Amino acid sequence: MGRKNVESLDCSVARSLAVLGERWTILILREALLGTRRFADFQSRLGIGADMLSDRLSTLVEYGVLTKQPYQEPGQRPRAEYLLTPAGRELHVLVAALQQWGDRHLPRPAGPTMTRKARRTDRPVRVAFIDDLGDEVPINDVVSIPTGN
Amino acid sequence: MGRKNVESLDCSVARSLAVLGERWTILILREALLGTRRFADFQSRLGIGADMLSDRLSTLVEYGVLTKQPYQEPGQRPRAEYLLTPAGRELHVLVAALQQWGDRHLPRPAGPTMTRKARRTDRPVRVAFIDDLGDEVPINDVVSIPTGN
Repeated sequence: MGRKNVESLDCSVARSLAVLGERWTILILREALLGTRRFADFQSRLGIGADMLSDRLSTLVEYGVLTKQPYQEPGQRPRAEYLLTPAGRELHVLVAALQQWGDRHLPRPAGPTMTRKARRTDRPVRVAFIDDLGDEVPINDVVSIPTGN
Repeated sequence: MGRKNVESLDCSVARSLAVLGERWTILILREALLGTRRFADFQSRLGIGADMLSDRLSTLVEYGVLTKQPYQEPGQRPRAEYLLTPAGRELHVLVAALQQWGDRHLPRPAGPTMTRKARRTDRPVRVAFIDDLGDEVPINDVVSIPTGN
């Protein structure tokens, strides 16, 4: 599923996957959500080759998940850093849903590598279905309905 | 990232991706969540080759996302159908998170192919962060904290 074909895909799940489903992309997002911004930091934290990282970052910039901003440290040449856009920050839900499922069904013996909490209240946070009143809907009560579109 | 290495991966995001991140897997799950159970139905709805489908279904059975159950129609040979386990049904959150992001940031001109609602109340449903009291937490208020594990 090449990303060039995103526009032709007939389902938002497939469309998101065409952008996000490439190897490494979600792990790059995980690092970005933890605060990583710089090419060299992504590279050392993920152990990913420079060409692959460069390609994946370009895709994420192209689709508006990251923006590329110049920065310059004193005495150094100008470099770029990669910041999450609002659309990119929304992907926190997706990365958290993946982690939550893995923590539960493919657990590490040493326990989770990350937890999530609300900055304002310090309460633990998880991903769930909610309705338009903001009430949680149990997963077995949720139905997907094809729209016929 | 081969799925044989799941146990060695040091992060639940990576562990989930090793099982779920293979091409087609999430689309197979999407169909299963819409009620598809039979090999021939997955094949015709997805336009996927039989070998690839067979391999992806085996992985999902191996990791406890689907179970394989025999069924037999009168006058036909016995066949298998694939049912979501409770762990598989939990992935509804992940598939919905992907769809929600795609609907918003990579929208189809014709609109969404699927909507979600609560069976019991008929109210529209979306994926969000909630805290341990069941209250929604705005995405910009959620922080991920490495545990050091």
